[in-house]
Amino acid sequence: MSKEEKVIPYKIYLEEDEMPKTWYNVRADMKDKPAPLVNPATMKPVTEADLAPVFCEDLIKQELDDDTRFVEIPAEIKEFYKMYRPSPLVRAYCLEKKLGTPAKIYYKFEGNNTSGSHKLNSAIAQAYYAKKQGLKGVTTETGAGQWGTALSMACAYLGIDCKVFMVKCSYEQKPFRREVMRTYGASVTPSPSMETEIGKKMLAEFPGTTGSLGCAISEAVEKAVTTPGYRYVLGSVLNQVLLHQSVIGLEAKAALDKYGVKPDMIIGCAGGGSNLGGLIAPFMGEKLRGEKDYEIIAVEPASCPSFTRGVYAYDFCDTGKICPLSKMYTLGSNFIPSAIHAGGLRYHGMSPILSKLYDDGYMKAVAVPQTEVFEAAETFARTEGILPAPESSHAIKVAIDEALKCKETGEEKTILFGLTGTGYFDMFAYERFHDGKMEDYVPSDEELAKSISELPKMN
Amino acid sequence: MSKEEKVIPYKIYLEEDEMPKTWYNVRADMKDKPAPLVNPATMKPVTEADLAPVFCEDLIKQELDDDTRFVEIPAEIKEFYKMYRPSPLVRAYCLEKKLGTPAKIYYKFEGNNTSGSHKLNSAIAQAYYAKKQGLKGVTTETGAGQWGTALSMACAYLGIDCKVFMVKCSYEQKPFRREVMRTYGASVTPSPSMETEIGKKMLAEFPGTTGSLGCAISEAVEKAVTTPGYRYVLGSVLNQVLLHQSVIGLEAKAALDKYGVKPDMIIGCAGGGSNLGGLIAPFMGEKLRGEKDYEIIAVEPASCPSFTRGVYAYDFCDTGKICPLSKMYTLGSNFIPSAIHAGGLRYHGMSPILSKLYDDGYMKAVAVPQTEVFEAAETFARTEGILPAPESSHAIKVAIDEALKCKETGEEKTILFGLTGTGYFDMFAYERFHDGKMEDYVPSDEELAKSISELPKMN
Repeated sequence: MSKEEKVIPYKIYLEEDEMPKTWYNVRADMKDKPAPLVNPATMKPVTEADLAPVFCEDLIKQELDDDTRFVEIPAEIKEFYKMYRPSPLVRAYCLEKKLGTPAKIYYKFEGNNTSGSHKLNSAIAQAYYAKKQGLKGVTTETGAGQWGTALSMACAYLGIDCKVFMVKCSYEQKPFRREVMRTYGASVTPSPSMETEIGKKMLAEFPGTTGSLGCAISEAVEKAVTTPGYRYVLGSVLNQVLLHQSVIGLEAKAALDKYGVKPDMIIGCAGGGSNLGGLIAPFMGEKLRGEKDYEIIAVEPASCPSFTRGVYAYDFCDTGKICPLSKMYTLGSNFIPSAIHAGGLRYHGMSPILSKLYDDGYMKAVAVPQTEVFEAAETFARTEGILPAPESSHAIKVAIDEALKCKETGEEKTILFGLTGTGYFDMFAYERFHDGKMEDYVPSDEELAKSISELPKMN
Repeated sequence: MSKEEKVIPYKIYLEEDEMPKTWYNVRADMKDKPAPLVNPATMKPVTEADLAPVFCEDLIKQELDDDTRFVEIPAEIKEFYKMYRPSPLVRAYCLEKKLGTPAKIYYKFEGNNTSGSHKLNSAIAQAYYAKKQGLKGVTTETGAGQWGTALSMACAYLGIDCKVFMVKCSYEQKPFRREVMRTYGASVTPSPSMETEIGKKMLAEFPGTTGSLGCAISEAVEKAVTTPGYRYVLGSVLNQVLLHQSVIGLEAKAALDKYGVKPDMIIGCAGGGSNLGGLIAPFMGEKLRGEKDYEIIAVEPASCPSFTRGVYAYDFCDTGKICPLSKMYTLGSNFIPSAIHAGGLRYHGMSPILSKLYDDGYMKAVAVPQTEVFEAAETFARTEGILPAPESSHAIKVAIDEALKCKETGEEKTILFGLTGTGYFDMFAYERFHDGKMEDYVPSDEELAKSISELPKMN
C-alpha cells in the first residue's frame, strides 16, 4: 500500500526510536539572521561574557549560535522526553465533520503532561544545562503559571532548586497552579515582592499593583544574579527556547511524513513565540531553503497585538530594563494588556527569530477578539473532547475560520495547527464566558502610540 | 527477536486496529454469579420491566446478562474511543529507579482526556444507548465531578441533554468542575435541591446539609422517572459499568502481550469498583478459568473501608431507598465518610461483581490512610511527571509499598496498577497536605456497627 493510501488514524504517535534525536535551529537556514541582542550598558551586541552572570553557559552558546543547524539532544533530556512524549498528532475528524468542511485538519497536542502545555520541552533542557554547570538552582517568572509549573517539574526531576516569581494577580487568582508548583517542591513568590530591589521599588511606587510579566522577569533576573549558584531561565521569546521547542515541529513533520501528508497551512498562537516557533521550525526550514512553500499564520489576541499593530524595533524585554535589548515586534515594554483580557499571550514583544521572519514576509499574522476565541474553544471541546487553554484557542479560532473558508470554496486544504495546552486552570475565564460577562478589548491607537513612543532611543 | 527480548518503551500505545472490538463480561466466567438485584417493593429479583422506568433498555439487558462473554462495542462508540483512546500503558522506569526496586512497574493511565479519568469509557456507552432508544436526555449524580464531566462530554458529542445533580459541598468547593460541565452544555444542580421531592424532604429535615452521594443518586433517579424522555445513568457499581470499563483491562493486556509480559500483581483503587473491575476483568477471566494466577489487590481509603470492614449483605444503593437492593460489601447506606477525607472513593457500597469475587477469595483488599496516599502521590508526581488524582493515588501507594517489599526480598515482580486520573481539580486537598493540615480518619467500630445495623431487614 502506498503512503497516500494509508488510512490515517485519529492519533499518530511516533515510536520511541522515531523521536527526534536533535533539535533544529532555524537560524541556520535564514539568509538574513535575526538582529543580535544588545547590551544596554555598552549598546553593543552582547557577548557570552555579558550574559554569563544571568544565563547558563551552554544556553548562552545556543542563544548566540546562528549557524549550527542540528543540535544533539542530550541523552538525559531524551529520557525525560520519553516520559511524556511523543505528543499525539491528531487528525480532527470530529471537528471536520462538525464543520462540514472538505479541509483536512491536524493538530499537534502538547497538553498531555502535568504542566499542561508545551513549556516542558524547554524547561527540562534549561534545567538540565543548569545542573550540568553545577548550579544549585534557577529562577524564573511565570504569568498564568504554565511555564512555572513546567520548570518546577523539570527541576524536581533533576533535583535542583526552582524559585518562581509569579505575577501577583495570577498568584491570587490561580492558587491551584501555585499548589501544583509546590507539589514539585518549587518556591513561589508573588511579584512584585520585597525579596528584590526592583520589587521593593515597584511596591513603593505603586502600592496596590497586581504585578506584570515584565516586572516579574526583572525580579527573577535580579534574584539570579545576586544569589550564588543560581541563573535565570525563561520560557519564551529567546532563541534557545525556540531551538528546544523545535521538537514539536520535528515530531509533527515526522508523523505527517509517515503518511505522506504535507500541510498547506500551519497555524499557531503567538505570545512570546515559543510554541509557534517550535511548531513551524522544520517547515520554515524547507520554505527558507526553497524546497516547499507553506502558508504560515501567527494568531495573537486583539488585546495584545504585537505583530499586527506593533513596530519592529529594539526594545527592553523587561520592565526593570536590566535584560539585554532585543530587536523584535513590540508594543513597548510599558504596554500592559487590559485586565479584561483573559486569554494569555500577554507579552509586549515577540521572539526575535519570528519577528525577523515575519518582517521578511515568510509568515502572516492575524489578531482575534477573545469572545470569538472562547466560542471556538467551546466548539472544539464539544467535538474533539479536549478542553483547550485560552492561548491555544487562538489557533483553534483561525483553524476553524480557514476550514470554513474551504467549505465555501470547496478547497481540500490540509491545515496543521498547534494545540499548546489544556484549560483546566482557566475556568474562571470560561465561567465569565458562560455567564455572558466576557468582553473584548482592543487598545486604542493613542494607547499604543504612547507605549511605542517610550522605546529606547537607539532606534 | 523474541518477544521477551524486545526493549520495552516508556509508553506502549496500541494501534487503532489493535483496540478492543468487544467488551468482556467477567460474569460469564464466574461459576458462582453475583447475587441478583432485588426490587424493594416485591423483595424479588428485579426484572427488565422493573428497571425500564429508570434505565435504558439495552443497558438493562447488559446489567442482567450473566452469560454473554463478549459484547460487541457499537461502531459509534468505537469511533468515540478513538478520539481519546488507546490510553497509554506506561512502564514506570523513573519510579523504579527512584525506589531502587528490582520490581517492574507498569500503569495504565486513563487521565489523558478532559473528564480527567476512566469514567468516559462508560459515559459514552450509556449516552449512546440512551440516544439509540430515542431518549431526550439522561440524569445522573456526581460527587467529585469526574463522572459528571465525563457524561457531559459524551452527551455533548451525541447531542442529547445531560442533567447532573452535584453533591452540594463539591458544587461549592469545585466550581471549576462545574464550569467544565457547563462548557459541555450540561445543567448542573447542587444536591439536595428543590427540584425533587427527595431533595425538598432532605432540605426540610436537614436545612444546613452539604449533601451526599446517596442523596444525589436519589434525586437523579427521581428526576429521570418523573421526566418524560429521560433515564438515569450511573458511573460505577453497576455490572454494565464494569462491562464498559473492561476496555481498560483489555487494552492493558493486549499491550503487555505484545511484549510477552505477564503481571504478577494487579492493583487498583476501589470506590464503587468501576476502575478496578475494568482493569482486572480479562486477567480475572484467566484466573477464573484456571489458566493463570494473578495476585489482585483492591485499595480503599481507611476512612471508607467497605471491603475491609464492611459486611457482604443486601443494602440500599441510595439514601432515598428508591433504587433496587444490591448484595455487596457495604458499610450501610447511612454511612457518610468524614469530611476530613479528601481522597474520593466515598461510596458506602461496592460493585456486586467485585464483592462476590472478593468474598470467594479471588482478590484481596487493603485500606490505607490518606496522608500516606498523598505522600505517594507527591513522589509519583515528581518522578513520573503526572499529577495524580487522590483516588488513583491509593493504587500508587500500594504499588510503591509492594515495589519496596521487592527491594527487600530481591524479587523481580511485575506490578500493574491502574492510574485512573489526574488531580488538577483536587488542589485544595494537595494544599492541605502541603500545609501539613491533612489528617487521617478511621471510623470507630461503634460508628460502623451503627450504620451496618441499619441494613434492610431481609439479610
